[in-house]
Amino acid sequence: MHPTVSVPSLTEVKQLIDHRLAEYCKVRTIAAKQVGDQYETLWKTIGTLLQSGGKRFRPYMLITAFSTYADDDADIETILPAALAQELIHQAMLVHDDIIDRDTVRYGIKNVSGQYDEIYKPHIEAPDERSHMALSSSLLAGDVLLSDAYHFLSRVDTTPDRLMQAVTIFSSGVFEVVGGELLDTESSFLKDTVISAETIARFKTASYSFISPITTGAVLGGASVSDVQMLRQFSEYLGVGYQLRDDLLGVFGNPAQTGKSVATDLIEGKRTFLIEQFEALANDEQKVAFSKMFHKADASELELATIRDLLVKAGAREKVEDTIELLRAKAEEILALLTISETSAQALRELVGQSLSREK
Amino acid sequence: MHPTVSVPSLTEVKQLIDHRLAEYCKVRTIAAKQVGDQYETLWKTIGTLLQSGGKRFRPYMLITAFSTYADDDADIETILPAALAQELIHQAMLVHDDIIDRDTVRYGIKNVSGQYDEIYKPHIEAPDERSHMALSSSLLAGDVLLSDAYHFLSRVDTTPDRLMQAVTIFSSGVFEVVGGELLDTESSFLKDTVISAETIARFKTASYSFISPITTGAVLGGASVSDVQMLRQFSEYLGVGYQLRDDLLGVFGNPAQTGKSVATDLIEGKRTFLIEQFEALANDEQKVAFSKMFHKADASELELATIRDLLVKAGAREKVEDTIELLRAKAEEILALLTISETSAQALRELVGQSLSREK
Repeated sequence: MHPTVSVPSLTEVKQLIDHRLAEYCKVRTIAAKQVGDQYETLWKTIGTLLQSGGKRFRPYMLITAFSTYADDDADIETILPAALAQELIHQAMLVHDDIIDRDTVRYGIKNVSGQYDEIYKPHIEAPDERSHMALSSSLLAGDVLLSDAYHFLSRVDTTPDRLMQAVTIFSSGVFEVVGGELLDTESSFLKDTVISAETIARFKTASYSFISPITTGAVLGGASVSDVQMLRQFSEYLGVGYQLRDDLLGVFGNPAQTGKSVATDLIEGKRTFLIEQFEALANDEQKVAFSKMFHKADASELELATIRDLLVKAGAREKVEDTIELLRAKAEEILALLTISETSAQALRELVGQSLSREK
Repeated sequence: MHPTVSVPSLTEVKQLIDHRLAEYCKVRTIAAKQVGDQYETLWKTIGTLLQSGGKRFRPYMLITAFSTYADDDADIETILPAALAQELIHQAMLVHDDIIDRDTVRYGIKNVSGQYDEIYKPHIEAPDERSHMALSSSLLAGDVLLSDAYHFLSRVDTTPDRLMQAVTIFSSGVFEVVGGELLDTESSFLKDTVISAETIARFKTASYSFISPITTGAVLGGASVSDVQMLRQFSEYLGVGYQLRDDLLGVFGNPAQTGKSVATDLIEGKRTFLIEQFEALANDEQKVAFSKMFHKADASELELATIRDLLVKAGAREKVEDTIELLRAKAEEILALLTISETSAQALRELVGQSLSREK
């Protein structure tokens, strides 16, 4: 008997990826010291960040999709570099996203900019100038992570044709997420322009976080062109649904489980799909009440509870839940069309659940 | 007779690359519109930038090194994507470099941030906030250019082994330039830390601008491991020498030829190799006189001329010229050791001249 490709659990994947990332940071930190002590410092801040959090859901999706199609004797080790690439590109985008948002905390610890703000304190007195320099260092950190993601990807043990397809998928994911990120950023200040939350979810979330890992895994596993095409659609449903679930958790979730405040989105007036549904469904009275409390810096607990109540009463919450169910049904419909075993279909069905039904 | 690989001139390479870049921007702009009108706008700003300047010296070096080793019937078309990748990574780094320096002009026109500052004017009143958003858009522009550089590289028509080597060289160039950029940035404000101009030249200039294109070209052309190793050293000499020449031109050059002011470096107090040599060679009297005029925002033409005079009299200018000559001799020594024809050696010798003896 030869070994079979069993799909590792998310916990197993996390261990595997965490281990590889720690190794990667160690090697890069040593190489950076050859350039200069200051560069070693940058790599230490990157190491701290990479080892402080992250569910490694993208590598998990890639490995799951790979296992769905790979031969029984295929070794997951061969495609691990591609899984690592997905994690690195994600971290690179987070680092740059934090620059745009001027956030200094990630995974409950100081991110690269946050750490550099401390490092530069003895050297630059003016806070604005120091902040610019700290952001500049994290800009460079994101660049090298993005570059290393491609380097990892190039080291996958596969055929030239599959490798080229993987790189094409990967770069098309980056192309789309950059567009999604731009649209999301601009939607907060562009006048006379409405960018739908669904469009942003499609390009900012679904593209590089779902479509890219899942279709890359399938391609590396040897899926047919038509299966890859269908999985592309499948991943899009999952990614958009994931974002809608995220929006719901950001308002109705349990902070003890999600680790996320249920006030921030409402206070900041984030225009999610949920809010769009409210605007489409609410009556005038509800809209007036809502507008007095939404996007209000000092909204009280009572006011926030009233907003939630309005979102429920107007049918917005239900509409989002219905949309998620519709996306789930469409995703599962696709599963039935793929040329895969029932065991594999079950593994992908679990991905649907993990993406759309999660409570954290 | 089969066609022979003749080395195209820099002018021919520029035409070839400019044409491909225009095509690339066109395709990307159309794809961006599918994401959203705002993303199309980003690609238009990128297109304007990419088509407004750039000598395409990196693609030229790659093609020259390739032609040195390739078979007579090799087609330059096959490795053009690698040449384009060198140009794109360069442009990506320039875009991000401009963010760090808060520059809004490049090649005499508004760069991506500069263009976005105009675009956002009707939407964001506060200049600081608008500037942050404009920088954010150019951050995203640099990301997608960096990513597309790798995508181009993956499309080179070569063996899997050579492709993997090319990607490794490429990513190691990015790793080093990020370190060099960090050192350069920090050298302007870190207290009690001296980072030598030569170290910065090695990592910020030589790495991705010389070592990467020349060794990539050689690898793709089929150079032996030992030749690639020697060319690595050769490129390092060229890159460092190029930077030293750049420093000289920034103080003693002819602005009509270089298009660069000969005042900026002196007024900004840029600590180049030239200045380091002055500090090592000048007597106390010269140093005192120098310190009164160097790094002085309102230095007069007469004061600037006096600084130049001091740099000459202390022997700093000559020391830099001597160092460049030493680097030239070392580079030419290597050429004699390579297993290449005299015609090819001549082509590489021309690269030495173009890098070290240029007047613009």
